[in-house]
Amino acid sequence: GTKLKVFSLNSNPELAQEIVEALGTELGKCTVKQFSDGEIQINIEESVRGCDVFIIQSTSEPVNQSIMELLIMIDALKRASVKEINVVIPYYGYARQDRKAQPREPITAKLIANLIQKAGANRVISLDLHAPQTQGFFNIPVDPLLAMPILAEYFCAKEYENDVVVVAPDHASVTRARELADRLKAPIAIIDKRGPRDIGSREVNIVGNVEGKTAILVDDIIDTAYRIATATKAVVENGAKEVYACCTHPVLSERAIEVIQDSALKELVVTNSIPLTEEKRIDKITQLSIAQLMGDAISRVYEQKSVSVLFK
Amino acid sequence: GTKLKVFSLNSNPELAQEIVEALGTELGKCTVKQFSDGEIQINIEESVRGCDVFIIQSTSEPVNQSIMELLIMIDALKRASVKEINVVIPYYGYARQDRKAQPREPITAKLIANLIQKAGANRVISLDLHAPQTQGFFNIPVDPLLAMPILAEYFCAKEYENDVVVVAPDHASVTRARELADRLKAPIAIIDKRGPRDIGSREVNIVGNVEGKTAILVDDIIDTAYRIATATKAVVENGAKEVYACCTHPVLSERAIEVIQDSALKELVVTNSIPLTEEKRIDKITQLSIAQLMGDAISRVYEQKSVSVLFK
Ligand SMILES: Nc1ncnc2c1ncn2[C@@H]1O[C@H](COP(=O)(O)O)[C@@H](O)[C@H]1O
Ligand SMILES: Nc1ncnc2c1ncn2[C@@H]1O[C@H](COP(=O)(O)O)[C@@H](O)[C@H]1O
Repeated sequence: GTKLKVFSLNSNPELAQEIVEALGTELGKCTVKQFSDGEIQINIEESVRGCDVFIIQSTSEPVNQSIMELLIMIDALKRASVKEINVVIPYYGYARQDRKAQPREPITAKLIANLIQKAGANRVISLDLHAPQTQGFFNIPVDPLLAMPILAEYFCAKEYENDVVVVAPDHASVTRARELADRLKAPIAIIDKRGPRDIGSREVNIVGNVEGKTAILVDDIIDTAYRIATATKAVVENGAKEVYACCTHPVLSERAIEVIQDSALKELVVTNSIPLTEEKRIDKITQLSIAQLMGDAISRVYEQKSVSVLFK
Repeated sequence: GTKLKVFSLNSNPELAQEIVEALGTELGKCTVKQFSDGEIQINIEESVRGCDVFIIQSTSEPVNQSIMELLIMIDALKRASVKEINVVIPYYGYARQDRKAQPREPITAKLIANLIQKAGANRVISLDLHAPQTQGFFNIPVDPLLAMPILAEYFCAKEYENDVVVVAPDHASVTRARELADRLKAPIAIIDKRGPRDIGSREVNIVGNVEGKTAILVDDIIDTAYRIATATKAVVENGAKEVYACCTHPVLSERAIEVIQDSALKELVVTNSIPLTEEKRIDKITQLSIAQLMGDAISRVYEQKSVSVLFK
């Protein structure tokens, strides 16, 4: 049959290594470096002709370089006569630029989809796309995996002294909160922002009851951590006894680590869709691996089986 | 008629300013920033509907970011219903990856051409493409401008104590050397590398006579400056009295400035297709402006006149 080959680029080599271990195989040999002027140089160091190839690359920071590495790798593989080019993008950068919120704005999430296809990809495997509609930006098959089962399993295994409430830090997170709440057999609450934005002092209204409870906040991306910190403060002010949070993609830019340290959060649970650099590995943050999930998805695609069983 | 609008991105704002001054207009208002996680954020701050738009952006260092800025800007303009999107790329990054020199290599210069078109560009204006064949990587019109008239004018205005010889630092530069030599009514010589590359000690053979002459070396890109320094040493060892050099694109990466300082070069003449950062503005380097040439090309395209008169 067709040979399976898995290549890692530079964004997430540790995750890629874990994935091939889960698959019982090894990473394909390639070097991805930069010339002295910053141009990317890719050398694929083993035959790939006729193979079913998977490239593992989150388009995370440095985001523009990660995207270009991915596109150049796709180009190289296409010219090396592989059979299929599957791109595994655990964190899809620019996912938040998915609509024109203002006139004359780009829709960069769609642009990236176009570029990946133009370069020559045949299939995309991603995880918790910021908007599920992003799937429709592609004309090729997209497998939209979910980290929720992994996050929920972790929270279900914990013992809590109080009743649990799952809290959506904004309206966009209600669906994710509901999914976790179902698994924990807990109710949900929603942070409902009110009051004039422009004067800086926000009254925060909470829909649902958090008093005396253990609150678990759920988001997809935590970037500056400003929203999660605001939500933590709000639930504490409304009587929550302890606060946990979880997200799939730990972008954690700017002062995020400080903001998390200074917050009342007891623990933040994230996945390794984006690696945590040394200074981001603080006690409060627990990182769960998506390697098994990604490995299962790769095997199923390779064996031409449906990946949707993994979405449960 | 259709309105002309010129926008600058971040690679070369000073050149862009000079170009609009040459055109007797002003830069279009837009801000091109980064979110805290490194994602590019573009806001076009004036109406562009139905306009003939020119974007000025060399895809120079930081190359991957410059490319993404360009693609995102094209996407934003396309969605803002402009009439034509013309991209002015004085320095075309990745131009040297224009063929598969090894198996399983990408052809990134072609990939970039595909991406620019896919994003929505209607026309490309560039300057001294590393290989003229790169023009054919596009399915849209490309105007390949030449810096030689500007460089030649500078060298023709100088007085020389010795006879002049124009020297090609390698075989690929012979055509460029010939063009300058014609204008200076001087002969050419060619650096002809010999000897085993792998042992590091290269015997350098020169075809043509440099003894007792003023040598002018001609290249398109000076990157690490290793080649130009080797050529300088070779012509001096072969009896040249003084050595000048010129190139269109001053990439000047790594230790290039030191290498130039330490060489016997009297002067290096470059253009502003790539801006010189503070530490690159040394006495030995003279920078000539391509603003008038670029401005003329923009006017002619805007007026739907042939640009080829500018190639002479
Ligand atoms: N990288 C980014 N960092 C911060 N904000 C962003 C980023 N990308 C997009 N946005 C903004 O976030 C908003 C979309 O986020 P959301 O409302 O959570 O879907 C848009 O209005 C964007 O302007
Ligand atoms: N950014 C770069 N820096 C240094 N070398 C490069 C770069 N891009 C491509 N090359 C190499 O330069 C060669 C092409 O340059 P040339 O022979 O001058 O056309 C190719 O073999 C490439 O591997």
